[in-house]
Amino acid sequence: MNQTKPPFSHGYPQTPKPKHFFLAELSVIARYKRQTLEITVDLSTRSIVSNNVYNGHGYPILSNAEQDRAGELPHEYKPFVESVRKRGLNLSQVSCSYFTVGWFGEVKKTKRTLKLQCFYTNETANLFVRALEGITIVVDLEEMKIVEYYDRANIPIPKADDTEFRALNQKPPFGPKLNRFGINQPDGPGFKIDGRVVSWANWVFHVGFDIRAGPVISLASIYDMEKHKRRQVLYRGYVSEFFVPYMDPTADWYFKSYFDSGDYGFGQSQVSLKPGGDCPENAVFLDAYYAGETGTTEKTSNAFCIFEKHAGDIMWRHTEFEVPGIEEITEARPDVSLIVRTVSTVGNYDYIIDWEFKPSGSIKFGVGLTGILAIKGATYTHVDQIKEDAYGTLLSDHTLGVYHDHYLTYHLDLDVDGVSNSFVKSNLETVKVTDNSSPRKSYWTVVSETAKTESDAKIKLGSKAAELVVVNPSKKTKPGNEVGYRLLPAPVTHPLLLTDDYPQIRGAFTNNDVWVTPYNKSEKWAGGLHVDQSRGDDTLAVWSLKNREIENKDIVLWYTIGFHHVPSQEDFPIMPTLSGGFELRPTNFFERNPVLKTLPPKQVQWPNCTT
Amino acid sequence: MNQTKPPFSHGYPQTPKPKHFFLAELSVIARYKRQTLEITVDLSTRSIVSNNVYNGHGYPILSNAEQDRAGELPHEYKPFVESVRKRGLNLSQVSCSYFTVGWFGEVKKTKRTLKLQCFYTNETANLFVRALEGITIVVDLEEMKIVEYYDRANIPIPKADDTEFRALNQKPPFGPKLNRFGINQPDGPGFKIDGRVVSWANWVFHVGFDIRAGPVISLASIYDMEKHKRRQVLYRGYVSEFFVPYMDPTADWYFKSYFDSGDYGFGQSQVSLKPGGDCPENAVFLDAYYAGETGTTEKTSNAFCIFEKHAGDIMWRHTEFEVPGIEEITEARPDVSLIVRTVSTVGNYDYIIDWEFKPSGSIKFGVGLTGILAIKGATYTHVDQIKEDAYGTLLSDHTLGVYHDHYLTYHLDLDVDGVSNSFVKSNLETVKVTDNSSPRKSYWTVVSETAKTESDAKIKLGSKAAELVVVNPSKKTKPGNEVGYRLLPAPVTHPLLLTDDYPQIRGAFTNNDVWVTPYNKSEKWAGGLHVDQSRGDDTLAVWSLKNREIENKDIVLWYTIGFHHVPSQEDFPIMPTLSGGFELRPTNFFERNPVLKTLPPKQVQWPNCTT
Repeated sequence: MNQTKPPFSHGYPQTPKPKHFFLAELSVIARYKRQTLEITVDLSTRSIVSNNVYNGHGYPILSNAEQDRAGELPHEYKPFVESVRKRGLNLSQVSCSYFTVGWFGEVKKTKRTLKLQCFYTNETANLFVRALEGITIVVDLEEMKIVEYYDRANIPIPKADDTEFRALNQKPPFGPKLNRFGINQPDGPGFKIDGRVVSWANWVFHVGFDIRAGPVISLASIYDMEKHKRRQVLYRGYVSEFFVPYMDPTADWYFKSYFDSGDYGFGQSQVSLKPGGDCPENAVFLDAYYAGETGTTEKTSNAFCIFEKHAGDIMWRHTEFEVPGIEEITEARPDVSLIVRTVSTVGNYDYIIDWEFKPSGSIKFGVGLTGILAIKGATYTHVDQIKEDAYGTLLSDHTLGVYHDHYLTYHLDLDVDGVSNSFVKSNLETVKVTDNSSPRKSYWTVVSETAKTESDAKIKLGSKAAELVVVNPSKKTKPGNEVGYRLLPAPVTHPLLLTDDYPQIRGAFTNNDVWVTPYNKSEKWAGGLHVDQSRGDDTLAVWSLKNREIENKDIVLWYTIGFHHVPSQEDFPIMPTLSGGFELRPTNFFERNPVLKTLPPKQVQWPNCTT
Repeated sequence: MNQTKPPFSHGYPQTPKPKHFFLAELSVIARYKRQTLEITVDLSTRSIVSNNVYNGHGYPILSNAEQDRAGELPHEYKPFVESVRKRGLNLSQVSCSYFTVGWFGEVKKTKRTLKLQCFYTNETANLFVRALEGITIVVDLEEMKIVEYYDRANIPIPKADDTEFRALNQKPPFGPKLNRFGINQPDGPGFKIDGRVVSWANWVFHVGFDIRAGPVISLASIYDMEKHKRRQVLYRGYVSEFFVPYMDPTADWYFKSYFDSGDYGFGQSQVSLKPGGDCPENAVFLDAYYAGETGTTEKTSNAFCIFEKHAGDIMWRHTEFEVPGIEEITEARPDVSLIVRTVSTVGNYDYIIDWEFKPSGSIKFGVGLTGILAIKGATYTHVDQIKEDAYGTLLSDHTLGVYHDHYLTYHLDLDVDGVSNSFVKSNLETVKVTDNSSPRKSYWTVVSETAKTESDAKIKLGSKAAELVVVNPSKKTKPGNEVGYRLLPAPVTHPLLLTDDYPQIRGAFTNNDVWVTPYNKSEKWAGGLHVDQSRGDDTLAVWSLKNREIENKDIVLWYTIGFHHVPSQEDFPIMPTLSGGFELRPTNFFERNPVLKTLPPKQVQWPNCTT
């Protein structure tokens, strides 16, 4: 993604396809001879343009292959084999998973290490709820060997009973029972996919993939029926970082403060979607490809699904009784949207990322948390036995669901009707009526404030009522409003760690809900370019200390959606999806309702049937 | 709804139907000989048990019939006929709508009056965007005559061009184009309706109707497959009041601070839902009946729709690569929920109220705002002409969309696994690590606090991280957690009017996001029993000053979801739905995930077809 920013195409409807990125240069980050290399390759000449050895703190994303190799090491490591034997377990049923080590104030440069924790898999596929608690293994990734080993305690391993999530291993009764449901689209899906460019209703956008970010939506534009042209909305959007700190300070757990994008690769963690389960029957699937550890092509089949969502919602409606001579008028339009879905499974957790495009011009961002909780083995079987902080909810015998947070920081490079945009805080301010000019004592009005520099746009939501709008100051509507898109945030979730605590220094990009920066091609990753063991010196919070000008510039909106998670028994042994989301909504972008002239849907005729 | 609280039935699965309310007594509120009567009728003996003349402030809901009669008066009122003539308008195309007058500090008892404002309907069905601005008419409802008349200014009436919302009056091009979509349910819908009792998946509940509240969901219980019994969740829930203050303090607008439930009747305002537009093709419809002005039966056909929502969401999923000997396991279940939908059209606005039941035990509350904005006629055609506060957004020539709020206050009488419940604030509190016991400096933990009295449960969200849970303190799970349901609120929206401003005194129940009261059958309406011209002496904010005990009692949770609305041009001439919502989610109510044993759906076989 290291290319010059290309222009949008305006050729709709003859050529509704924006120009593809022209990959003149390619960025490569490689580990080679124990060094991190930042290489730039010129594809046209097939030559290396620059090759920088990175000597700062932090390491690149761990490859899946090296994680797997590390996970195999304990099986040949005698102290571990002895620990397993002592516990009376079958070694072949033990599986060790990999956890990044973080940074906790070490001053000297630390080695590239990984921690392993191990789980017992016999009689269940749900290994993450059956920890061999107390065993921590440190692997030196360069040596690919175990360099530290602890077996602190012999805490009971939770039983396999009632942990299985596979239908084939469940016993009846099953349920709740749901009737069958089928879809019929006699005209086929309403969208077209040309390479990676999706056209649907009034939208065109590109569905990209990045080993680190996962889905990357770019060059999203919407056709304006009134202006008879396609208009830019989003240059590029993706989850830039995903911070997941756990809240257990004890020896085996304190380090658990993951950056699921920078540590593990949110794209590398994408899984194949299951038709019918992950995506409805009208979905179309796309694969993902990325470079493996040694440059080989890795493929994730069905890594994306794209489908029209018919949720039964109402796009707009009105009933009118007051027109003389007409008893009742009712006009109503059903809502339809287009979903681009991916799921990244980072160890135990499954993260559903939905991009939802609406004909009304809104883009909705859905986040779903499901999968398996991070479980801590414990001696407890009842809350009455817990005498001090257990750092989690007792979910079942010997099973604690540890408290934690999820923060997804989106990079949203909006290009609202053009590249140069401004960020406007439309503050809703109470006005006191003190001159008896009205029987009212108060009302609120809008006092707009354009952010001049980055510090004007650092926003911690919740204390002030405001609409946050990205506008194009050089494009006005007919009545003179600046064309814009506004952010409708999710419920506020602020970090509760101390700002000088190490995980929070690294995750300082979550200290504000909203940041705005001038576009800078090196500022893609809110947690920094090399995040594993990073020390917070390359985060969004650091870049924006420069307090650069952001008015009427190519700007990037960064928004963080967060979740505090106090696990409950319903989350065990597998979590019903917890959903959140936010919206970008056109605000004086169109002259009027862009779906006013959407016709009521035609009835689907059923095929002629013999039975 | 003035009956003794009946018990839940536990007879599932043989008799999955809770007992219907036994209507021993009926409350009647009547206007008779210029008095407000509160009458109690014994249905079994067909006799009047009590008849109280209400002498306090405030008047009952306005009937549709008297609003219509009032709206006709200007057509026979000479000064108005002259005003219309002066403007060069066709009187037969003028329609006058009705606006409650509020209370603005008057000390003496005020007459039962209504204000009219009039609109021009020629060439468009969208009258609300074409105000005869400056004309205000006051009607004495008892005399049913005009008692005050103002024609302040001759502000241009916005043109009809581009205001039409009916498809039949639109000119091409139409669009955006959406392909046809059909549903096939070979087994039929998955729910059963017996009278007004709906059974679906693991849920049973009663769909009631009230002239004031609109939809009333009661006796909602869920079948627990593990305990083999049906368990109570919600005794009764409904929108108790709906406060809509506008933000224009000028003579023609200052009074606009409606209580759409108490002023107009949110049930009386329910409209017939349009199949295909308001509800998908798999919907089933129910009618609503209520007593008209003179006791006659009024019917609203198709006032409710009930349907299974297949939005393509994921109920739960996990992909597992780490089980020895198994390359990949993926289990995923599609989500399905049941929607009960109503729409109340209060003049210009259409409010979509969705009750969504999920097999996972969640109840989601959806609110959609659509319809027509309240428009103020203005001299302006461009924002550059606006030199002082216009109190709204200029949407089109002479067309201001006035700033306003919407606050829906839900009465949620939860009976979590029984009648006696407590309200627990599970505060997420930062713990500082100061003893070097951990490399961490901080973490958060849960410090729970049970509200003893009403004042402990007045919560203004946003400043503290907390989970808000209604628990049954006498019912514990196997590991010892209190069974509960927690509130997942919408983004915070707090009132911005001064608390001593008259509309806010009347709407004081919105001063907190959450309140908890002991159940009291006379405390149904958050804004008071008689709201039209009320003075705020009978609101939730007043009742709860008693600071009653609420621990381990039959309690009611009151939650307000709000919207600040800065209109944008996209909201004109009809608004794309703006959606919000909140959730009640089981929290240690079940021993484990209640949808773990939901089987993957069966494929729908298409019928054998000749073509």
